[in-house]
Amino acid sequence: MLSREVLSLLAGKNFASIATVLPDGSPQVTNVWIDYDVDHNILINTAMGRVKEKNTRKNKKVAISITNSSNPYETASIMGEVVEKITMGAQEHFDHLTKKYMNLEKYPISNPFEERVILKIRPQKVFHISIPLLKYMNP
Amino acid sequence: MLSREVLSLLAGKNFASIATVLPDGSPQVTNVWIDYDVDHNILINTAMGRVKEKNTRKNKKVAISITNSSNPYETASIMGEVVEKITMGAQEHFDHLTKKYMNLEKYPISNPFEERVILKIRPQKVFHISIPLLKYMNP
Repeated sequence: MLSREVLSLLAGKNFASIATVLPDGSPQVTNVWIDYDVDHNILINTAMGRVKEKNTRKNKKVAISITNSSNPYETASIMGEVVEKITMGAQEHFDHLTKKYMNLEKYPISNPFEERVILKIRPQKVFHISIPLLKYMNP
Repeated sequence: MLSREVLSLLAGKNFASIATVLPDGSPQVTNVWIDYDVDHNILINTAMGRVKEKNTRKNKKVAISITNSSNPYETASIMGEVVEKITMGAQEHFDHLTKKYMNLEKYPISNPFEERVILKIRPQKVFHISIPLLKYMNP
């Protein structure tokens, strides 16, 4: 389902923004690390009780934007919904992301009292947007 | 209202994500250039009829995340609402942003059929988040 370009953005050391909706209907957006599974679901590792986790208890719809860290004009835009919240193995998955993004075995400032959780997101609409601006730019 | 740290992120050549909510209650997020005015409103320059402009006709609430382009672990998170849509001077404001972000006088691939508009956003909640991770990171 996900194209080669989108998979490449997901596999790279690129940052994403995830938007969720509060019970009062207003949006929230936060920056996150990003991953995906073999079935092309998007995986976001967070902690139980954080705003994005709480928001998706009532409204499962999310929007994600992933930006190429070497080209801010290349992004993937994904709209989908949280289909599962996985706590088993979520700490190990967080360690895996810490290795990917920081090249460390363990996140250096972990909170021992929080429980990690993976938001498994099924993409429903996916766009790859690459605005060919870099060739014009004056430094 | 905005702190020195947040103003510094807004003034720099930093990219932002803006989240809005569709009429069906699902969120949308896109990457944008960012600016602010003397009254500390956030200014987003877009075109009439784009999704984020259309979404804010019904639901004026938006969430914005601005990331320091030299430190992905420093962001400002702003929740607020669109209080005005300004078309007068919006093209000149777009030129000003083109200069800031691309160091060009004119955006190289403008669409002559679209009308630029400034979304003027009044911040209601503002957080500055700086996770001190860079010192730990292995390249």
